[in-house]
Amino acid sequence: MTEGAQRAEVQVDVRYAETDQMGVVHHANYLIWFELARTELCTRSGFHYREIEELGYLLMVTAAEVRYRQGARYGDHLRIVAWVERLASRGLRFAYQVLRQEELLATGATEHVWVDSRTQRLCRTPEPLRQPFARLAGR
Amino acid sequence: MTEGAQRAEVQVDVRYAETDQMGVVHHANYLIWFELARTELCTRSGFHYREIEELGYLLMVTAAEVRYRQGARYGDHLRIVAWVERLASRGLRFAYQVLRQEELLATGATEHVWVDSRTQRLCRTPEPLRQPFARLAGR
Amino acid sequence: MTEGAQRAEVQVDVRYAETDQMGVVHHANYLIWFELARTELCTRSGFHYREIEELGYLLMVTAAEVRYRQGARYGDHLRIVAWVERLASRGLRFAYQVLRQEELLATGATEHVWVDSRTQRLCRTPEPLRQPFARLAGR
Amino acid sequence: MTEGAQRAEVQVDVRYAETDQMGVVHHANYLIWFELARTELCTRSGFHYREIEELGYLLMVTAAEVRYRQGARYGDHLRIVAWVERLASRGLRFAYQVLRQEELLATGATEHVWVDSRTQRLCRTPEPLRQPFARLAGR
Repeated sequence: MTEGAQRAEVQVDVRYAETDQMGVVHHANYLIWFELARTELCTRSGFHYREIEELGYLLMVTAAEVRYRQGARYGDHLRIVAWVERLASRGLRFAYQVLRQEELLATGATEHVWVDSRTQRLCRTPEPLRQPFARLAGR
Repeated sequence: MTEGAQRAEVQVDVRYAETDQMGVVHHANYLIWFELARTELCTRSGFHYREIEELGYLLMVTAAEVRYRQGARYGDHLRIVAWVERLASRGLRFAYQVLRQEELLATGATEHVWVDSRTQRLCRTPEPLRQPFARLAGR
Repeated sequence: MTEGAQRAEVQVDVRYAETDQMGVVHHANYLIWFELARTELCTRSGFHYREIEELGYLLMVTAAEVRYRQGARYGDHLRIVAWVERLASRGLRFAYQVLRQEELLATGATEHVWVDSRTQRLCRTPEPLRQPFARLAGR
Repeated sequence: MTEGAQRAEVQVDVRYAETDQMGVVHHANYLIWFELARTELCTRSGFHYREIEELGYLLMVTAAEVRYRQGARYGDHLRIVAWVERLASRGLRFAYQVLRQEELLATGATEHVWVDSRTQRLCRTPEPLRQPFARLAGR
């Protein structure tokens, strides 16, 4: 993990609707859980992600990956942890862990680019967010 | 069923992700299937629902109900049928059936009101849609 | 609300994935939120719903209904409240409210029957759950 | 693409419920679409995935990755293509493309291991599936 990067954590109780007939959580839901922790991490920057969108910017997902080690089950109480793994001028990469107590159930990452929602074009990190996101990344 | 109302039908292969650990489709998915048949029915009016939104109107859901008789299972090939059950000046009610071959798995209904998306306020049926929706309703 | 029925409440932060292109939460998600509050209510009976399934019983959904008054939005912090509205020998009816602060966003209900998961047939309220569920219902 | 590997394709009309407030499909849904094409590909082996589960085996997901190039939108008619990218004695890797007409919207891959559902332990490719999956992989 990047030295000094801030970590955000959210707690998730597995929902019945998230399970599938294999008796464990369907694998697509991990991306949704990652997003919960990413939202919490953004909030640490001083901006709820909703406010970032209101400023006229989007963090568009360009890539996602997940490694599954153990299936989460209905009734499990999980912790989802997120941090900035890489910060660039036009985007960033978040990394994630899904934990049940101290057991690591899954890891993953997502990559994002900044988009100006008026022009729908890629852009540099919006000025008001540069410092806050640098701090998240531990710089 | 209203005499003369048009019926739209879509075919759905049950998705693995739609099942839950009970081994059948999670009950919330039926509302999503209803929406597929409603989209198809709207298309019959001559307007894809995407075009209705582009005209500046929304059909906002105000109520939904489902009666479940038999669970749908992964691998099932289903037919979802929709029709206009009631047409009013400011909204409408759709009715639905979910069928596996000729077996009726579920029935339901949703109620909607027209919303002007610029003002976010309730409105009458948009002028260009009045005739088309009256025809759907069999008038 | 039934006099004396116990109320369970869960807190939900709206997930980005729960929104749709209308900018509000897609209406099918309310059924999933109801389930969270129902799970919490069952837990008050002394049995996590997972344990009820381990006893060999299912509470199969036979009907669901929702009335939508105001759309929930990403960033909203909601409370979902559930209680037993009707208790019968072979099933029960839960009622729900979705609140943002004190504002009522939606109400609803679901009906369920007891199923013996070994035989897959309807059954009476399982013996070990009779007293606990009667207490939930305020009897 | 592996020389000679069979390709399966499914058609998907984007569902309203799959969009999010960004106005495009939420990125988690691509994993669900991949699964539809994977199901279709398995069917080409002569076994519906439901039958594979009935034989007592699961293809458990151990990793997933997606590269997003262009967002899919409500009303889009998509093609999802899947093929076996790598076949090993105890698992396999599928690759995917999401296309709108000839435009490539996303690519991805998932990795799976065989699990004996009675013992819940990893196992070799089940005997009755060896030849069929080798043929899928173009061997």
